[in-house]
Amino acid sequence: MAEQVRIKNTGLRGVTVADSAISFIDGEKGVLIYRGFRVEDLADRSSYMETAFLLLHGALPSQEELADFSRRIKAERQVPDFIIDSMKKWPADASPMDVLQATVPMLAMDDPSPIAADRHEQADKAMGLIARFPTLVAAWHRIRSGLEPLAPREDLEHAANFLYMLKGQEPDPETAHDLDVCLTLHADHTFNASTFACRETVSTQAHIYAGVASGVGALSGSLHGGANARVMAMLLELENEPDVADWVKKRLAAGERIMGLGHAVYKTEDPRSKYLKDMGRRLGDKTGQRWFEISSQIEETALAEFAKKGKTEIKPNVDFNSAPVYYLMGIPTDLMTPVFAISRIAGWCSHIIEETFAEAQEKPALYRPKAEYVGDYCGLMGCEFTPVDER
Amino acid sequence: MAEQVRIKNTGLRGVTVADSAISFIDGEKGVLIYRGFRVEDLADRSSYMETAFLLLHGALPSQEELADFSRRIKAERQVPDFIIDSMKKWPADASPMDVLQATVPMLAMDDPSPIAADRHEQADKAMGLIARFPTLVAAWHRIRSGLEPLAPREDLEHAANFLYMLKGQEPDPETAHDLDVCLTLHADHTFNASTFACRETVSTQAHIYAGVASGVGALSGSLHGGANARVMAMLLELENEPDVADWVKKRLAAGERIMGLGHAVYKTEDPRSKYLKDMGRRLGDKTGQRWFEISSQIEETALAEFAKKGKTEIKPNVDFNSAPVYYLMGIPTDLMTPVFAISRIAGWCSHIIEETFAEAQEKPALYRPKAEYVGDYCGLMGCEFTPVDER
Repeated sequence: MAEQVRIKNTGLRGVTVADSAISFIDGEKGVLIYRGFRVEDLADRSSYMETAFLLLHGALPSQEELADFSRRIKAERQVPDFIIDSMKKWPADASPMDVLQATVPMLAMDDPSPIAADRHEQADKAMGLIARFPTLVAAWHRIRSGLEPLAPREDLEHAANFLYMLKGQEPDPETAHDLDVCLTLHADHTFNASTFACRETVSTQAHIYAGVASGVGALSGSLHGGANARVMAMLLELENEPDVADWVKKRLAAGERIMGLGHAVYKTEDPRSKYLKDMGRRLGDKTGQRWFEISSQIEETALAEFAKKGKTEIKPNVDFNSAPVYYLMGIPTDLMTPVFAISRIAGWCSHIIEETFAEAQEKPALYRPKAEYVGDYCGLMGCEFTPVDER
Repeated sequence: MAEQVRIKNTGLRGVTVADSAISFIDGEKGVLIYRGFRVEDLADRSSYMETAFLLLHGALPSQEELADFSRRIKAERQVPDFIIDSMKKWPADASPMDVLQATVPMLAMDDPSPIAADRHEQADKAMGLIARFPTLVAAWHRIRSGLEPLAPREDLEHAANFLYMLKGQEPDPETAHDLDVCLTLHADHTFNASTFACRETVSTQAHIYAGVASGVGALSGSLHGGANARVMAMLLELENEPDVADWVKKRLAAGERIMGLGHAVYKTEDPRSKYLKDMGRRLGDKTGQRWFEISSQIEETALAEFAKKGKTEIKPNVDFNSAPVYYLMGIPTDLMTPVFAISRIAGWCSHIIEETFAEAQEKPALYRPKAEYVGDYCGLMGCEFTPVDER
C-alpha cells in the first residue's frame, strides 16, 4: 500500500512524482539543462533537429546519426490526404489549437500499429510527429485563408520549411535561424502541465498520439502555452497607446495582472529570455515595427513597480518575449501557441518514451491520485433516495 | 512556497491532490457514492439522465428540472455536418477511440465561444457533450460499415436512442433499460486516470472540449477503459475452449495476467458488478450465447486459485463484467470503450466544472508537479558541448 499523503489544491506544486532523465531546471539560478547540456549551448551551437535527437535518444548524435535523423524527418513531413480533405470541411474560424488537437488522433488512424512495442518503435512514431506538426499547422493556416496547402520541401531545414509552407516563400536565412533557435529553446521544460498530461495519458498504455493530443489540449490553456497569444493581444491593444508606462502603472495599481510576467519555476531571469530579446530587438530594427519597444517598456515599468514592493522575483516569462518575436516573423497571433507545440512535441515525445519504456527505473504506475470527498454525505448507506415522481 | 514532497514513481497512488464533492469510494467496503447517493439506489430507481443531472448540478432534479434537462439533451444530439463529412474521409479501420478523440475538438470548432464564462455556461457545454457523444460513436460505426449515419430520434431516451442510431432498429425496452443502468454505473469514479487528465488539462484554463479530449485519450489505454475490449477479446479466444478452468489454471501457473481481474481501488466486490452479472446472466439466457458462462468460469477458477495463495482481495473489475453484457447487447468489441466514454462524459464534465469553477474551495492551481532529475549531469554549467562536425 502506498504511503498516504495529502497535498490538496496546490496543483502538485513542489511534489516530486517521478524520476526523469530528460531535463533539469534550477529556477533560482536561471538554468535550464536538456540531457546534461545547457540550453544556451544548444541555442548557440546546435539546431532544433540535433536537440530533438538529443531529447529523444539521450545523447548528441554523430554526424552520420544527425544526417540520418534529419533525412528521415524530412521524408516524413507529408500528412495523409484524408487529414487535408477533412480540414477543408472545417469552419475557417476554427482555433488552430483545436485543429491540432483534432488532427493528432487522425495521425493515429494513419498508423497501422499505433501502440509501440518498444522504445525504438516509439521513437519512430515520435519522429513522425515531429516531422508532421509543422505541416499540420501550416496546412490549416493555408486552408483557412482559402489557399491550397503547400507540400513540404526536402531541400529546406525544419524551421525554414515551416515558414515556407506557411507563407509560400522561403524565409531569409536569418529569420529561419532565429525560428530554429526559438524551437530549440521551447523543446522541453520538465514536468510542465502539457508534458504531465502526455505522461498521465500514456501511463494507461494509451498510444503516443492519444498522449500528444492531451498535451496539445493542456498547452492550449491561457495559463500555459496559450499565454503567448494573450501577450500579443495585449501588445496589439497598446499599438497606439501614447504612454505605455502610464498604462502599466495604472493597471498594476488597479490590482490587475499583466500577461507574461511571472513564472511558476524561475525566480530569476529565464535563460531563454535573452535570446528572444536579442531577436526581438534585431527584428524590430529590421522591420521598423515597435512591438519589441512596447514590450520592453512594459517590462521596465512593471519590474520597477514590483521592485518598489520588494517583489524582485517577478520576471517576464518566455511567452512575454516570444510573442513579439513570432509576430515580427510574420506568424499570426493565433499560431503562436501552435508554434510552441511544433517545438515542444520533441519534449512531449521524449517524456512519453520515458513514461512507457523507462529503462533505469521501475515502470511508473498509471496516475491515479485521490481526492478528499467534501460533498453531501449521509454515511455509507447513502442519502435517502426519493424517486423523481415524489419530488 | 509549497511544501516539498517526494512520492516518486507510484502514479500518485494514495496521494490526495484535491477536494471534490462529486463522488466517493470506500474500496474496503465496496461502496460507490455519487453526490451522497449510493450507486445502487441510482441504478435501481433512477436513470442515466437523472444521474447526469445529479453529477453536474450536485442535487437530484425536480420533475420539471429533469424534464427540461432531458428535453434539452434530446434537442442537442445532432452533430455538425462537417464532422460527419470529415468522418467519411477517414480510413474505415480507424479505432473508434481515435475517432472520438479527434471529433471532440471538432465540437469546439462548432462552439462560437468554447471558453465558458461561468459554471452555468460550462454546464450548458457539458450537456452538449453528453448529448452528442452517442451520436459521434454511432455515426462512426455506421460510416465505417458503409452506411449512412442515422439522425437521433427525440422520441427515444438516451440509451435506446444510441442503440437505435447504432443498429437502425429500436432496442427492446429491457435492453434499453439495461444499457441505461450500465451508463448510470459508469458515470463517475472519483479521480481515475481519465478524469484526472480532464482536470489537469482544464487547470491551464483550456476549454472543456480540450479537457474531454484528453480524458478520451487516457480512457483508451488498456490499463483503463480499454480493458473491457481486451476482456472481450479474451472471451472470444475462449469461445471454443473445451476446458476454461484448465486454461485459467495454466495461465496463472505460468505467471500470466488474466484481463479484468483486480482493481486499483476495490479490495472487495465492486458494487457495480452485481448489476452487470445479473444482466449477463439474463442476456445469456435470452440469446443462448455463453459469454457470461465463460466469464463466470474464469472468475470462479481464478478466484479459487488466488484464494489458495491467500490473495482474497483480487476481484473481477467492472470491465470484466461489462464486456459480455455489451457483447450480448450487440455492441461490437471495439465500441465497448467508447460506450464507457458515453457514460463517463457526465463525470468528466462534472469534474471539469468543479476544476474550473469551484465555489467552496480555493481555485486549484494548474497541475505542475516536479520530477527528480536522474539524467546526465555535469553541474550547472552543463556538459561540455562539442559541435557536430567535431563528433
